[in-house]
Amino acid sequence: MIRLGIIGATGYTGMELYRLASRHPGIEIAFATSEQYSGQKLGEVFPRVDPDRDITLRSLDDIAEAPADVVCFCTPDGVAMDRVGAFLDRGMRVVDVSSDFRFDDPEVYTSWYSRPHTAPSLLDSAVYGIPELNRDRIRTADLVGNPGCYPTGVILGLAPLLEEGVIDAGQIIVDAKSGVSGAGRGLKLRNLYVEVNDSITPYNIGHSHRHVGEIEQELSRFSGERSYVVFSPHLTPMSRGILATTYVRVKNGATNGDLAALYEARYGDEPFIRLSQSGYPETRFVTWTNYCDLRIDRVDGSDFAIVTSAIDNLVKGAAGQALQNVNVMSGLDETAGLL
Amino acid sequence: MIRLGIIGATGYTGMELYRLASRHPGIEIAFATSEQYSGQKLGEVFPRVDPDRDITLRSLDDIAEAPADVVCFCTPDGVAMDRVGAFLDRGMRVVDVSSDFRFDDPEVYTSWYSRPHTAPSLLDSAVYGIPELNRDRIRTADLVGNPGCYPTGVILGLAPLLEEGVIDAGQIIVDAKSGVSGAGRGLKLRNLYVEVNDSITPYNIGHSHRHVGEIEQELSRFSGERSYVVFSPHLTPMSRGILATTYVRVKNGATNGDLAALYEARYGDEPFIRLSQSGYPETRFVTWTNYCDLRIDRVDGSDFAIVTSAIDNLVKGAAGQALQNVNVMSGLDETAGLL
Amino acid sequence: MIRLGIIGATGYTGMELYRLASRHPGIEIAFATSEQYSGQKLGEVFPRVDPDRDITLRSLDDIAEAPADVVCFCTPDGVAMDRVGAFLDRGMRVVDVSSDFRFDDPEVYTSWYSRPHTAPSLLDSAVYGIPELNRDRIRTADLVGNPGCYPTGVILGLAPLLEEGVIDAGQIIVDAKSGVSGAGRGLKLRNLYVEVNDSITPYNIGHSHRHVGEIEQELSRFSGERSYVVFSPHLTPMSRGILATTYVRVKNGATNGDLAALYEARYGDEPFIRLSQSGYPETRFVTWTNYCDLRIDRVDGSDFAIVTSAIDNLVKGAAGQALQNVNVMSGLDETAGLL
Amino acid sequence: MIRLGIIGATGYTGMELYRLASRHPGIEIAFATSEQYSGQKLGEVFPRVDPDRDITLRSLDDIAEAPADVVCFCTPDGVAMDRVGAFLDRGMRVVDVSSDFRFDDPEVYTSWYSRPHTAPSLLDSAVYGIPELNRDRIRTADLVGNPGCYPTGVILGLAPLLEEGVIDAGQIIVDAKSGVSGAGRGLKLRNLYVEVNDSITPYNIGHSHRHVGEIEQELSRFSGERSYVVFSPHLTPMSRGILATTYVRVKNGATNGDLAALYEARYGDEPFIRLSQSGYPETRFVTWTNYCDLRIDRVDGSDFAIVTSAIDNLVKGAAGQALQNVNVMSGLDETAGLL
Repeated sequence: MIRLGIIGATGYTGMELYRLASRHPGIEIAFATSEQYSGQKLGEVFPRVDPDRDITLRSLDDIAEAPADVVCFCTPDGVAMDRVGAFLDRGMRVVDVSSDFRFDDPEVYTSWYSRPHTAPSLLDSAVYGIPELNRDRIRTADLVGNPGCYPTGVILGLAPLLEEGVIDAGQIIVDAKSGVSGAGRGLKLRNLYVEVNDSITPYNIGHSHRHVGEIEQELSRFSGERSYVVFSPHLTPMSRGILATTYVRVKNGATNGDLAALYEARYGDEPFIRLSQSGYPETRFVTWTNYCDLRIDRVDGSDFAIVTSAIDNLVKGAAGQALQNVNVMSGLDETAGLL
Repeated sequence: MIRLGIIGATGYTGMELYRLASRHPGIEIAFATSEQYSGQKLGEVFPRVDPDRDITLRSLDDIAEAPADVVCFCTPDGVAMDRVGAFLDRGMRVVDVSSDFRFDDPEVYTSWYSRPHTAPSLLDSAVYGIPELNRDRIRTADLVGNPGCYPTGVILGLAPLLEEGVIDAGQIIVDAKSGVSGAGRGLKLRNLYVEVNDSITPYNIGHSHRHVGEIEQELSRFSGERSYVVFSPHLTPMSRGILATTYVRVKNGATNGDLAALYEARYGDEPFIRLSQSGYPETRFVTWTNYCDLRIDRVDGSDFAIVTSAIDNLVKGAAGQALQNVNVMSGLDETAGLL
Repeated sequence: MIRLGIIGATGYTGMELYRLASRHPGIEIAFATSEQYSGQKLGEVFPRVDPDRDITLRSLDDIAEAPADVVCFCTPDGVAMDRVGAFLDRGMRVVDVSSDFRFDDPEVYTSWYSRPHTAPSLLDSAVYGIPELNRDRIRTADLVGNPGCYPTGVILGLAPLLEEGVIDAGQIIVDAKSGVSGAGRGLKLRNLYVEVNDSITPYNIGHSHRHVGEIEQELSRFSGERSYVVFSPHLTPMSRGILATTYVRVKNGATNGDLAALYEARYGDEPFIRLSQSGYPETRFVTWTNYCDLRIDRVDGSDFAIVTSAIDNLVKGAAGQALQNVNVMSGLDETAGLL
Repeated sequence: MIRLGIIGATGYTGMELYRLASRHPGIEIAFATSEQYSGQKLGEVFPRVDPDRDITLRSLDDIAEAPADVVCFCTPDGVAMDRVGAFLDRGMRVVDVSSDFRFDDPEVYTSWYSRPHTAPSLLDSAVYGIPELNRDRIRTADLVGNPGCYPTGVILGLAPLLEEGVIDAGQIIVDAKSGVSGAGRGLKLRNLYVEVNDSITPYNIGHSHRHVGEIEQELSRFSGERSYVVFSPHLTPMSRGILATTYVRVKNGATNGDLAALYEARYGDEPFIRLSQSGYPETRFVTWTNYCDLRIDRVDGSDFAIVTSAIDNLVKGAAGQALQNVNVMSGLDETAGLL
């Protein structure tokens, strides 16, 4: 049994990770922390998540001696970079589900997050955690930067196209629609039912959302040249799910069949990627699952193509992918606890 | 008092037109038809729409002699083209809220709607009914083709940019999100609560939705050259409202201030267009109103700009705009019954 | 023009009152306060409420000299009782939309609200503000206690039955379903979209919700004997609206026709009460209106009857009724600004 | 492996049963029928339900020879009574998820369903399928009448109280709130998103809904005297889930502790019943599960008590309970495929 520690277990992501891990046949939860609820039983905070086992939530400061094989950080941005080192020093491996270890370059991190990176020396060794694209490096990594929710679906949709050079890396438009849980469990006016219900709104559109930096960094890896992404997120009246509609320019006259074949070649054996050229991805088909549904459509009369991808922002976009990374790192069946 | 006839009063659009017209100080409803409910009292079908006046719904075949000044068709596509002539011959003026009289060229109509146009000679005289853009021609028109819901918000957002030549007409991307009432009151599986709730899905994306033809026709008028639009509608879990997020390429280095100034110059005095460069358009701010909320944002680091527009698909996108057209045609205050 | 002051204008109730009052032909808004946003323009907080007039929000402490004819308190419970006296002393009349002046007896108040009442001497003169039931006393009142949202629909449904003695006052069951705005605009976990969406939950059921005391007090007035009410509120996934389903025991063998006739006699001329014995009340028919929809049904095979009532909790259940009270107090048309 | 046949696999209940059964370790799906989609692959109708196995939907008329151990009818009311006999004659066992075999007395059936019962001789042998209450009889039954969605939660909540005689069987009030899937997948105006969203409405309240007969029959079994139930269903804006709030009169001065102890004694070991006296049942905690969450609250100041129960109408209220019955009938672990 892999012993898993969860740091920050009472946000939506941490709770989802706890829920998934508690049902995982090869994992036991070694500890779970919450600064807000430390000292309380998990069952008092989330009565339905793990009724059979009454774990007590602890403070991050109180687990310095607690044993674990892998530790997942589901903390707010900026916490993990100060704390991960201590766990690595104790021989544990870490998956950081926050944004602290997704960037190669601390200056790029700072440009998007407006704070200095306090553990720049760890960035080099951190692996960007999309198993479908980085499986081998994740297997042996001590520190995995688990991707953001928006980047996951977008990068999975574009990587096969960019690595084969069939689309232009410099003019990519992502129009993304996210459920409200993507904004977290924080008490913000924007998250209130009455403010969100029965209405859709854009926010931080253009080139300003923090996930732009992460997306461009990863896409550039596949394109071999600097990518540029226009990114427009929209707050959508649903609890979970992200649908990303991505507009690209096709080079070399690739047909729809050519493009779909690239997906098939790249992802045909992937357990968590479902390709369909009949129905469109819909968020309801992926919520509560670790699937990413993908489709590509060439547009008549121009060189445009449209990639549509759907994931559950809390599962494949966060906790599920974290667990998938834990599986890969630990030599477990990659799908264990996730089907 | 202007006597208004409503053909097809029991779909969502017809019902909305009835609701608005029944509260209009300068309009009286001369008759209302419904093939499905003919012979029934309106109050039996919609108990709350017009409780003070118990009009009986009639069949379209039974109103050949009924007097009216203006007749609005809220019928399914393909009905108005066979019926409008008879009303015009009797000296009435017509606003067709269906798609039958939006196109200049019957062959273009046929290419998008897959049926021959049965009244091609009337297309020449029909005026495309966006008052903010065609007010003078509408004033004297006998036949107005009321725009589609998606085209209204998109065209209003792009016309000022195209007529000043500051964006490229050949590479426009519209990513639109519509509430479910846009699909009508028909009994289709796709319209059921359980199929739509808590999920978002694309449909007919690329260059295939019928509104593409209408949008491209109108945009070409402003650009003076053939326009090309990629158009991706999404079915969104809300009752009403359309948010269109439109991606354009800016020419000539126009700044955000330049672009916003074009909006201000074009629409500053328009009662139904609200410009904002602070908050984004949200559908909840426009539902149940005839407003179109508009904003434009240049994107850092590229020549892209993003136009966001929000309307209520049943009001400014259909019945409200029809009434606005009736106001203009009849010499009434353009905002009467609509504020 | 009646000059209206609004104390606490930035909660859902205060905002709704502002919205309604700003469109009222006989009222001008003298001032609006907000402790949270004092010093800011209203338009910065709510961009769409009153775009034509850019009022600055003030602190309650800063309006000691501001002139007004009527002042409405939309403050949290416990504020008005400390502040109302000063306004009355300056010759203004007050409608308290909070709970501070709904009770006759300060000890009853304390038993439900767990705090002493700091202005018990004012309770005697305060009139309970349901115009349909207390119109004459409201007309001349200096201080009106505007009813709670749940009590409004329940009391309107039961008063005609109790004053005619046709139902048992001692065994009344109210099962109420409220939209989320009833919980206010406060940042509470329970109000987050993700916690509420797609689920229904009871809360404070039985004889514990604070509105029980208010309902029992008012019902006892009509029954002439002590009433007893079981009250079960449910948080329902909708933004606005309350549906109350009330179960009563019929005495004296009154038929359904008898009961409906009591409603007709009592409310037939009331502009804001709509009686229907065909369709059931639905919250969608009353949201954004000041209507209370009412129906009564005798149950086959027993002495039970069921009263169903629907209101908008923010309009007839709060701000709309407050404005109706202001109309009555000020000699304005009772429906002004409310149809 | 138990071979399961599903008759009527393309409504919401049949689809849910297929989904659950396809993941059940001890069951293989022998055939699935659909009159509407016969001849089509299941994957064309529901792309995500069973992607690994491409079963072809057949007509009920085409499976006369198909082998199976148990057959579940998920057909509209009135179909099973004509068809079940043929399957029983071939030695198969049957769970009827429709209403045809829930009643003891064909005349009672007819009084609620307004049609004659065409297989009255089978009613005697049919067992009412709530395993928690009828487990032994279900084990050996050839024909199980699977309960209605509303009755399941109500009966589970009341049986322990009635069999101990602590409540009055003659004055029970059930106020139930159901998600929209309870109305089925039929194309009815009332099921459209726009008609249901953001609003709550009662329907068929009092003593008229068909489930009243079923509830009263079963409750009478436990009370040993004729029971009487007032039943008010409400259509609630959510996809799944039923919350029933039931008001009863307590006899003999039983305390809340006494009542809770009855639940504990009856259900303490039941895997699908969760008792809680802290938080209330909420539908979100039971959707997509086979759980019934239960709680009881004595009401201060009277002899009333309130039972709150929550289930997923499609799982414990239909397909999940059917599978639980199949497990019991077949000697499988009762929770197999259901946790």
